[in-house]
Amino acid sequence: MRISELSRRSAVPTATIKYYLREGLLPPGRATAATQAEYDESHLRRLRLVRALIGVRGLSVSATREVLGAVAEHAGERHQVLGLVLGARPVDEDAPAPGPAPAPAPGAAEVDALIGALGWEVSEYAPARAALGETLETLRSLGAALDPATLRGYAELAERTAVLDLDQLDPDADPLEQAERALLRTVLLEPALLALRRLAQENESARRGG
Amino acid sequence: MRISELSRRSAVPTATIKYYLREGLLPPGRATAATQAEYDESHLRRLRLVRALIGVRGLSVSATREVLGAVAEHAGERHQVLGLVLGARPVDEDAPAPGPAPAPAPGAAEVDALIGALGWEVSEYAPARAALGETLETLRSLGAALDPATLRGYAELAERTAVLDLDQLDPDADPLEQAERALLRTVLLEPALLALRRLAQENESARRGG
Repeated sequence: MRISELSRRSAVPTATIKYYLREGLLPPGRATAATQAEYDESHLRRLRLVRALIGVRGLSVSATREVLGAVAEHAGERHQVLGLVLGARPVDEDAPAPGPAPAPAPGAAEVDALIGALGWEVSEYAPARAALGETLETLRSLGAALDPATLRGYAELAERTAVLDLDQLDPDADPLEQAERALLRTVLLEPALLALRRLAQENESARRGG
Repeated sequence: MRISELSRRSAVPTATIKYYLREGLLPPGRATAATQAEYDESHLRRLRLVRALIGVRGLSVSATREVLGAVAEHAGERHQVLGLVLGARPVDEDAPAPGPAPAPAPGAAEVDALIGALGWEVSEYAPARAALGETLETLRSLGAALDPATLRGYAELAERTAVLDLDQLDPDADPLEQAERALLRTVLLEPALLALRRLAQENESARRGG
């Protein structure tokens, strides 16, 4: 297809597509004339993933290029590709830590204990570990700490949510397409899941009688 | 207690407490001398609630005053108080809609159908309805719509999350204290629940084999 068709099907303006081509986020098309190139379905899938990484995950162009590079290195390893695209895995796990060893993150011990108790297999570097630990510490500092049994209850519901999330991926889809879908669903569903919790709280509060 | 003790116990600076007194967010203490007043536990509970409404829910001083006024009107109706503090209920449900009748919100029919199917008792005005509808529409517009069965699955997990949330409230606590707790736990737990989902996804993805 021509770049105009690629633009129409992806809803990405032609000028933006040209910018992505110059920045190396999109491989060049097959040249058919001095100023014309043909693009195919793989360009469309890649373009959608680029849009999701930039627009939904909020990555910069250079961070997107790094993620795409790491994805290419792990092509075929579906779990790695998903982790990279979702940001569950850092692009370069072997990068030396900048500066001196960091102090243990707040709440890290509690998070480690939870993950250990559940037997979850998650990267030591998963950014969600720090996000969880910080929230647990904040609640503690406000005198509203969660007890371990309640935290585990929430984690078990998260496990079931993740099963629903993964069930929606088409196992036969192209890995890049699958990764784009997973990213859209993971990030864009977040406000919906929080809204469902608010509605369910209101209902549960009514059910228990004012 | 003196204002200095109230400040120490609430971790709110004296100058801020005086500002809240002037703005009517906190009732005056019992005057014990021309420039001195005594405060009690009810002031402390109210002050904590004010801090949570401003700091955690991000309300303005005047919006906080309106919520507190509505809470006072419904004192004793625990469910109403919770709804007001959490923002599940508008302060004034009888206020005439500004301007002409609004167009149906995006995704509203889908949200109504879900709430009806589950038999949930939630206010017609709950802001979470709009948040949910908008997300469903966004996913649809990106070609990643949720099918009704999956949406219902997420809603049923939200129901169980809400039971955990409500179980943590002490039924014997003062209603304002209960409302402050509920607000802290509802809003501050949000990033933790999202982080748990990310970790659970990573684990589930690993479990299914890359």
